[in-house]
Amino acid sequence: MDVYINLDFESNEPIYTQLMHQIIAGIAKKELKPGDALPSVRSLAADIGINLHTVNKAYQQLKQEGFILIHRQKGVVINPDGVPQADDQYMNNLTSTLHPIIAESICRGLSKEQVLQLTGELYENFTKKEGGDK
Amino acid sequence: MDVYINLDFESNEPIYTQLMHQIIAGIAKKELKPGDALPSVRSLAADIGINLHTVNKAYQQLKQEGFILIHRQKGVVINPDGVPQADDQYMNNLTSTLHPIIAESICRGLSKEQVLQLTGELYENFTKKEGGDK
Repeated sequence: MDVYINLDFESNEPIYTQLMHQIIAGIAKKELKPGDALPSVRSLAADIGINLHTVNKAYQQLKQEGFILIHRQKGVVINPDGVPQADDQYMNNLTSTLHPIIAESICRGLSKEQVLQLTGELYENFTKKEGGDK
Repeated sequence: MDVYINLDFESNEPIYTQLMHQIIAGIAKKELKPGDALPSVRSLAADIGINLHTVNKAYQQLKQEGFILIHRQKGVVINPDGVPQADDQYMNNLTSTLHPIIAESICRGLSKEQVLQLTGELYENFTKKEGGDK
């Protein structure tokens, strides 16, 4: 796997969601492409020194959301058909997720331009082509 | 309180965070202004038919994040000094929160323009002046 998994054990964010987010970020950056193999639950758990159940929970949820397939024989792969594209349900969920975040940013005095700037930069960080070194 | 609290008991989102988000949304929309009184824990719990502890949990977290003050005598009020404005820690948290959301939106095929459009519309929905009859 080309994705460097970097967990923060001090964070309030559960380890399994950190793991999910890093795999999703890998897909967004195209470091992980459709059909790419991921390590087995057992091997990833051993590599990063976390519980089997934690990796399993992350994989099961990634599977449920269409990011990966788990074959009994072929192992774990990034969804070969690509991640299911945005539908109405996804857009509704995204709106519900962003709603309180935007509300708080307004309470804390951020302008619309500041929010759009940050959002745009985050988007571009995933999609820009990396330069030569790194 | 001028804010209509509308809880979804079928949602996966815990009731106390729903309550927090609606109060934060009320502040963002300026329906709740600095110094405005909120119902007591007991009275809000009775009004919306939820557990005292659920309201208390929401209020305690809102207090901790600077949205409200809880006076033993004066009761619960929206922070009279206004909500603490964005600092470096808030900006870091906001970035960490948005990061996986933007990653997923890219995986699901949303363009940067679509993400910025949605974000901008959400922002404007909080800040636009309501027309005459709601």
